[in-house]
Amino acid sequence: MQIAIPIYPAFTALDAVGPYEVLQRLPEADVVFCSEERGIIRTEQGMLGISADRTLDEVDRPDIIVVPGGMGTRTHLEPDDPYVRWIAKVHETTEWTTSVCTGSLMLAAAGVLDGVDATTHWGARGLLDQLGAHSVPERVVERGKVVTAAGVSSGIDMALHLAELIEGTERAQALQLGIEYDPDPPHDTGSLEKASQEIVEMTGIAMAGEYDRASQMHSLGEPTAG
Amino acid sequence: MQIAIPIYPAFTALDAVGPYEVLQRLPEADVVFCSEERGIIRTEQGMLGISADRTLDEVDRPDIIVVPGGMGTRTHLEPDDPYVRWIAKVHETTEWTTSVCTGSLMLAAAGVLDGVDATTHWGARGLLDQLGAHSVPERVVERGKVVTAAGVSSGIDMALHLAELIEGTERAQALQLGIEYDPDPPHDTGSLEKASQEIVEMTGIAMAGEYDRASQMHSLGEPTAG
Repeated sequence: MQIAIPIYPAFTALDAVGPYEVLQRLPEADVVFCSEERGIIRTEQGMLGISADRTLDEVDRPDIIVVPGGMGTRTHLEPDDPYVRWIAKVHETTEWTTSVCTGSLMLAAAGVLDGVDATTHWGARGLLDQLGAHSVPERVVERGKVVTAAGVSSGIDMALHLAELIEGTERAQALQLGIEYDPDPPHDTGSLEKASQEIVEMTGIAMAGEYDRASQMHSLGEPTAG
Repeated sequence: MQIAIPIYPAFTALDAVGPYEVLQRLPEADVVFCSEERGIIRTEQGMLGISADRTLDEVDRPDIIVVPGGMGTRTHLEPDDPYVRWIAKVHETTEWTTSVCTGSLMLAAAGVLDGVDATTHWGARGLLDQLGAHSVPERVVERGKVVTAAGVSSGIDMALHLAELIEGTERAQALQLGIEYDPDPPHDTGSLEKASQEIVEMTGIAMAGEYDRASQMHSLGEPTAG
């Protein structure tokens, strides 16, 4: 069972590594990080580099794809982009096509989400709609063989959901116990619907990544943040 | 604010990347992945490689360290091990010394946890005690400047706790919203105390990493799993 995770400059690390940590523990799982060229791909702030061990061309028939999000998605939304073309092509034969955070924008650009319910980072819901999907404010959305997850950390929940679909409830529970996923966030402010306006605004100001993302969306005619 | 994450062959990716994703968003954060030698360091199954951009020697006065766990920890528990010596040395001047999962075993080997309350992956609690710490079955344990987290995914909770200590509640809430950390695991079986014996046993059988870990602990006179 080949699980391909395409990465590109300025992707968000946890979008990719959360699902990786779950899915690599499935029996028969062969996870491969791939990119346009082999080599080290840097995340948004450049402080973390992950090795792309295969080119996209070398991964031509994965069983599962997990497309991470990140600011870098914004330069991979054109029909002739190599990632967009790769997603459109491999989607024809995947068993599961999945995304985390703004990775769903790339799925949409590839035509995978035309008129389909999907989720994304709360700050990109409008943009997802502009790209032809029907955004819904849920953490994990499964429609046919397409499973999309909301922002960043939600990829862990998505991957456990997928593990259950693939290997059954007990195996998924054992995986969850193996990574001791008994989450206990210090506060209950992890979704747009739960956070105060003040906190939402602070996100935009304090976090360069989110701020830039908002700016870019604004330049695309998108209202900032949500 | 330099945040050093030491990595070594057969570390667990999410242990490192969960905290990275939170802490890199703090203002002034400069996160550096370091290792005995510069280069790509592979996780337990070898399917993910992360770039160590600095040697341990090049990172001699970090403000914060985050020591990830993984099967590889078992070969880094001797007093003259380079990682153990590095932890002991930099701990003298850190503001925060932290670990995720079995990373706490390396802190203990470095003498950081002698008689100190600490946590680790549920399967390694006994081993942590053998190394001189006092293991407590909590998700995040803060004692002075030492903060330890339980298994794998708990590093996210630990990092948000740390972010709150460093930057205050509102900033930590904004960080949490930024990574949309509103966890919703499919089941409530993520801790040893919540899972059935059947699921605990399935973990040992189904997951090679956990099974080897248990075997190694057994060979060290440790009862398997918990």
